[in-house]
Amino acid sequence: MKKFTKYNIRNSLRRIFLYHGLLIRLNMMGVTRVFSHTIARETGVSPAQVRKDFSEYSIRGNRRGGYTTETLLHDMEALFYRDKISNVVLVGMGNLGLALSRYGRFAQRGINIVATFDIDPFKQKTRSDTNVYPMDRLQEIVNRFRVSVAIITVPEISAQEVCNDLLKTGISGIVNFSPVLLKVPGNIIVNNVNLSDEVESVIWSVHKLAKEESTL
Amino acid sequence: MKKFTKYNIRNSLRRIFLYHGLLIRLNMMGVTRVFSHTIARETGVSPAQVRKDFSEYSIRGNRRGGYTTETLLHDMEALFYRDKISNVVLVGMGNLGLALSRYGRFAQRGINIVATFDIDPFKQKTRSDTNVYPMDRLQEIVNRFRVSVAIITVPEISAQEVCNDLLKTGISGIVNFSPVLLKVPGNIIVNNVNLSDEVESVIWSVHKLAKEESTL
Repeated sequence: MKKFTKYNIRNSLRRIFLYHGLLIRLNMMGVTRVFSHTIARETGVSPAQVRKDFSEYSIRGNRRGGYTTETLLHDMEALFYRDKISNVVLVGMGNLGLALSRYGRFAQRGINIVATFDIDPFKQKTRSDTNVYPMDRLQEIVNRFRVSVAIITVPEISAQEVCNDLLKTGISGIVNFSPVLLKVPGNIIVNNVNLSDEVESVIWSVHKLAKEESTL
Repeated sequence: MKKFTKYNIRNSLRRIFLYHGLLIRLNMMGVTRVFSHTIARETGVSPAQVRKDFSEYSIRGNRRGGYTTETLLHDMEALFYRDKISNVVLVGMGNLGLALSRYGRFAQRGINIVATFDIDPFKQKTRSDTNVYPMDRLQEIVNRFRVSVAIITVPEISAQEVCNDLLKTGISGIVNFSPVLLKVPGNIIVNNVNLSDEVESVIWSVHKLAKEESTL
């Protein structure tokens, strides 16, 4: 059996993004210094974990007197390649693909969807406020815009095939919104985002909590 | 400072969903027995972690001869309240809200969006294939359909206000797609899904890998 990938998105990296979101908010509120235990409490992890994550990503700051909010933000943003624009392609212009192609927050984070693709010529016409290309233009556009990351929003049944097509063009990272675990070589980064899982995990946790409370 | 929540979605629960996706695929391929090291390799975690997660969620199976795929699936699906339909509301009928309200995979997982809401009367008319209600119908619909979980897809600026409104109706779980960390009381389950983070973490990992490989 082939490996999916050695390079899953690390949980520590996910937490760095979470801390970053919190720090932006604290900074806006005028908070200039922050302690690891505050970051921990607000994001639901342990203070030791916060310090370990900061250390893993070489995020500095004087612990004893708390971290400086601005230094933390600066270090994190340097980490995120925020200064650079990253060109991305999106394959699959159904409802979700269309929504993501219009998602305003991407641009603010330097994520630039340069082109979208669909096998359906009808979608190529009806989604005319975005450039929807047929799949045979993929290689050309990946080359022209030096694209290294693709978003997949195709139905489950075509996801692996689209993934293979993308990898042939030299793409090295995939954000997969289709509900399948993609098989890729070990040097490819894949982030599987399963929307049903995101909702179901909340439903499950709510049920579990209700059960626990009813047995107290 | 108020707590966000004690009840973040656990990473172990996220991994259970990952294992579940893999097992469905293995089962379809006719694989009847599976070892923890296979599950580990295919999902990118350690075999010890797989066994620990199974133990945490009381998922059984004879380790020595491998787990029975069907038993694992059965145990997981019992865990997920798969047999029950969960009624959910969605607030914010922009592009993303519209896409999620039409997301076919939710129904397969027992996630039933009974109503969507928006403050914009124009959206209440144009999204007419779905029921889009004004916010003042929230309490009535939450009561009528016994809704305990809500999906938030409103812009950042109104997310906290919408969250507060939802909590007033008695909702106890929130899937938050707006890019803010919501403040909620300690007994509320929140899952913050930040789409920019999901894409940016792949971009970051691709850059990092490329850098590591160029210095080898």
